[in-house]
Amino acid sequence: MDLLYIIDLIGVLVFSISGTMAAEDRDIDVFGAAFTGFVTAIGGGSLRDVFLNTRPAWVDDGNYLLAILIGVIIALITHKSLGKLRRALFMFDAIGISFFTIVGLQKSLAADSSAIAAIVLGMFSAVMGGVTRDTLMNETPLIFRREIYATACLSGAILFIVLANLGVNENTNAFISASVIFLIRIISVRYKLSLPLVGG
Amino acid sequence: MDLLYIIDLIGVLVFSISGTMAAEDRDIDVFGAAFTGFVTAIGGGSLRDVFLNTRPAWVDDGNYLLAILIGVIIALITHKSLGKLRRALFMFDAIGISFFTIVGLQKSLAADSSAIAAIVLGMFSAVMGGVTRDTLMNETPLIFRREIYATACLSGAILFIVLANLGVNENTNAFISASVIFLIRIISVRYKLSLPLVGG
Amino acid sequence: MDLLYIIDLIGVLVFSISGTMAAEDRDIDVFGAAFTGFVTAIGGGSLRDVFLNTRPAWVDDGNYLLAILIGVIIALITHKSLGKLRRALFMFDAIGISFFTIVGLQKSLAADSSAIAAIVLGMFSAVMGGVTRDTLMNETPLIFRREIYATACLSGAILFIVLANLGVNENTNAFISASVIFLIRIISVRYKLSLPLVGG
Repeated sequence: MDLLYIIDLIGVLVFSISGTMAAEDRDIDVFGAAFTGFVTAIGGGSLRDVFLNTRPAWVDDGNYLLAILIGVIIALITHKSLGKLRRALFMFDAIGISFFTIVGLQKSLAADSSAIAAIVLGMFSAVMGGVTRDTLMNETPLIFRREIYATACLSGAILFIVLANLGVNENTNAFISASVIFLIRIISVRYKLSLPLVGG
Repeated sequence: MDLLYIIDLIGVLVFSISGTMAAEDRDIDVFGAAFTGFVTAIGGGSLRDVFLNTRPAWVDDGNYLLAILIGVIIALITHKSLGKLRRALFMFDAIGISFFTIVGLQKSLAADSSAIAAIVLGMFSAVMGGVTRDTLMNETPLIFRREIYATACLSGAILFIVLANLGVNENTNAFISASVIFLIRIISVRYKLSLPLVGG
Repeated sequence: MDLLYIIDLIGVLVFSISGTMAAEDRDIDVFGAAFTGFVTAIGGGSLRDVFLNTRPAWVDDGNYLLAILIGVIIALITHKSLGKLRRALFMFDAIGISFFTIVGLQKSLAADSSAIAAIVLGMFSAVMGGVTRDTLMNETPLIFRREIYATACLSGAILFIVLANLGVNENTNAFISASVIFLIRIISVRYKLSLPLVGG
């Protein structure tokens, strides 16, 4: 339990760093960059909790906002050198979405959502922070137009539900399903796989 | 009751088709198109439920997400031929907003909102899915700049409250008010009526 | 209590005027302008209440929507002459954000949020209506790229928490903290102070 909590805080920290960095190419000030980091870090989980009609964890537990603040400060201080860490950040992000999807799915099931809604809400937990960030930045969300990202989350979430119905132990299931999300994400980027465009 | 439920599912299906089709002119992939269909179909009702502090129906009842999935698949498979059905889709959309407005208003009143808030939330139920879709697509929402759309919903919702206060039977009232929304919408498009622009 | 309620309604009215006016430079119709006024007026407080898992006041109390409607009508009728009142509106806006921040913070604490979350939610109450307006209008939110605005709100909110921990009387504290927000805002605009940009 404590381990999950620490992983959750680290995930929030990483998303906060990547969100703040994403803002650094734009004509915005340090507050805007910090705000963008915040939205990226808690947007997905907050939307899930709002749809579940529960209160997001960061409202009650100050540690989440502290983790975000630390992430923002790291990103603002190191932003020139962080460019060299882009590969490490990519790996962290892939781990983050894998973990957030499965934890989000489990939270949704625990709050009595239907299985198909839990799949959607698990994916939301992982990707909607980034979607909100891109929308605020006035861009078409990245996940709509490149790479396999949300689709990896959906695949792992569906696998979790299938394995759960087959009676697989929950912790084992979480580990397998999160790993599958991670692998799909890594492999699709490595081999430049993408979904077909519509229209065109 | 069963009839209302089936109409609701059909409304979600139709909005999912039109939302996915709206994405097909853009440089986005099939996931982005499906996501757009989803947002269009459930955005309005979900926002209403969030403001009412209740849980959206699709979180508990998997049939809504199945209806959306079917709509997305229909739109992706038939997207070239669906163009010819644009007139049919327009009629479905007009029926959809009429129905969603009145059902949304009734749900709001049942959740003890004030009458004026129920008017706003009824209109939200019908139009905010499209507004969210347009915002994600990085465009000024259509309803802000052309045709009589949300205004038709507002007119029917106000009429419903007036007739309810006059003691009209609720089912009769719902039928009359929804019909008025439908007629205002159809007539305004037929005769190219529009609201005055501000500024300019 | 009655005084606070009246100030709250006046704040909503002022934000509704400024939101509607912001829409008047664009190619949108009167409904779009009214909608923009509505979103600006209730967006921030509604988001706070949704995160607190409570119902926004305007859903139950029709006076808020009436205040917004009056603001929209004032803005639409007088929009040419209101330009001359831009200075008065700026002062009203500065008073509005000062008040909304502290009231939002107090409401969050009363709903048992953590102190750090109350700081964020207080700031949200004041600025997220404008952020939502700008996002719908398809622009990078103003607060991300100019002037000291949200930062003034954050400063006053942090001060409130510090003074509360020092045992300062709540009403005195609210008056001092709101005044600090107001002064930071006024002084920063007077002397063209701004936060450093990131990147570049």
